[in-house]
Amino acid sequence: MKRSERLVDMVQYLTTHPHTLISLPFFATRYDSAKSSISEDLAILRNTFAKYEIGILETVAGVAGGVRLIPFIGFNTAGDYLKQLADRIEDPERILPGNFIYLSDVLGDPQELRHVGELIATKYAYSNVDYVMTIETKGIAIANSVSRLLNVPYVLVRRRPKITEGATVSVNYVASSSDRVEKMELAKRSLPEGSNVLIVDDFMKGGGTLNGMEELTKEFKCHVVGMCVLCEASNPVNKVVDDYQTLVKITEVDRSKGIIKAKPGNLLEQIDFQKFPK
Amino acid sequence: MKRSERLVDMVQYLTTHPHTLISLPFFATRYDSAKSSISEDLAILRNTFAKYEIGILETVAGVAGGVRLIPFIGFNTAGDYLKQLADRIEDPERILPGNFIYLSDVLGDPQELRHVGELIATKYAYSNVDYVMTIETKGIAIANSVSRLLNVPYVLVRRRPKITEGATVSVNYVASSSDRVEKMELAKRSLPEGSNVLIVDDFMKGGGTLNGMEELTKEFKCHVVGMCVLCEASNPVNKVVDDYQTLVKITEVDRSKGIIKAKPGNLLEQIDFQKFPK
Repeated sequence: MKRSERLVDMVQYLTTHPHTLISLPFFATRYDSAKSSISEDLAILRNTFAKYEIGILETVAGVAGGVRLIPFIGFNTAGDYLKQLADRIEDPERILPGNFIYLSDVLGDPQELRHVGELIATKYAYSNVDYVMTIETKGIAIANSVSRLLNVPYVLVRRRPKITEGATVSVNYVASSSDRVEKMELAKRSLPEGSNVLIVDDFMKGGGTLNGMEELTKEFKCHVVGMCVLCEASNPVNKVVDDYQTLVKITEVDRSKGIIKAKPGNLLEQIDFQKFPK
Repeated sequence: MKRSERLVDMVQYLTTHPHTLISLPFFATRYDSAKSSISEDLAILRNTFAKYEIGILETVAGVAGGVRLIPFIGFNTAGDYLKQLADRIEDPERILPGNFIYLSDVLGDPQELRHVGELIATKYAYSNVDYVMTIETKGIAIANSVSRLLNVPYVLVRRRPKITEGATVSVNYVASSSDRVEKMELAKRSLPEGSNVLIVDDFMKGGGTLNGMEELTKEFKCHVVGMCVLCEASNPVNKVVDDYQTLVKITEVDRSKGIIKAKPGNLLEQIDFQKFPK
């Protein structure tokens, strides 16, 4: 088989199986080719994936070794995208009564979701995430995108009991938007004890919902490796969580004046871009 | 630049921009290469995409022409996957009190979601879908996967009003599970008049929810090009919708006996696999 054919299929295979160790013999059998040819193919892939910021192709040496694609984007690409996203959000048409912000178009756009997922997957590429967690409803699209790129399942926390989930564990939390004590719950069988959990959500005000999900992971004896939201509102200034990442920070919303101001959040400065091969 | 490098990036570019016309000059500029070289690259891609069932690389001739990747899987791959999915669902552990079925593990698994998306995107590859529609909550993961592969936005119908969506249009529907009249609604600005809508959902009993979404599209003066659900229950036998596709049909559920029987649904027989180049 020609190298070009192998390369085409390998790109598709690796990008649909990210963060997964794939052995050289697997590829050698798949293409009925010598391991030496496969090794040369992988060297080409490694360089091209780096050059076009598709990701890092890691090599694991030894008998149980192979290669693993870590989706990873570069500093400039990440920075440019965050500026573009902040610009898109800075549209006065988004401001709803009560100074709520309409984001369903962004959260329903497959290209935006891909970029958002790539950014978050880059930040948490080396955090050994076992599960992505989110709460219904708008965070689901973000969780799906991150889950696909980290190739780990996502679990969905409910604000209301559902009969189709079986036994659940629940916690109380204070929603910042209403200051009321509410309940959130997660199906018991959905999250194994001891898992590393990445929490994502669409919007954060005071951080009460993120805090609730943190509490919930404790009930499951799990460990939170990170919390990341698409948009953070500057108000209230004091949040009930402190270690979190945001893609976009909304600094001002005033429906009467038709003003919404947004800028890139703190995600960019918290990514270790040194991981990327030069 | 070497052909191998171009091919690697082209695969990534085309698979992240499916159903999108990309001009030859775009690639020629991106790789600083002659159009004749790009044409040869595309011929290799076309054959390899077909051979490995990645999709159909369509050529559009003329000045405004280019190529377009239509994700499309083959008959055998589709059939094997549906059998495997039915097997996974035929696990008595899934049966919850009230004969409800736990599916959150399947709906949270990125590889299952990719396959489910590929199947549905294959079926509706040539239906000119403008929007994928689903209703909260479990259908969202399916809608996301299909939306990504068809490269069109998805819109989310709500069972309860949300203050972050602005003006909405609502319809009443009869939920098969409760026989009660309920309300569903969609943000007015989320779906433009005249759009072609593909409706997807996770589970169907009598079809009341699908029927409600159909009614909702009428209120938006849109056209339903298809309805597809992951699982269909045999009971009740009479559905309130008739033209729909299902990936898996659940023919028997009995918690007291620990029995759940599932088999591939009607999706496979409704895909026109002749479209696939030989």
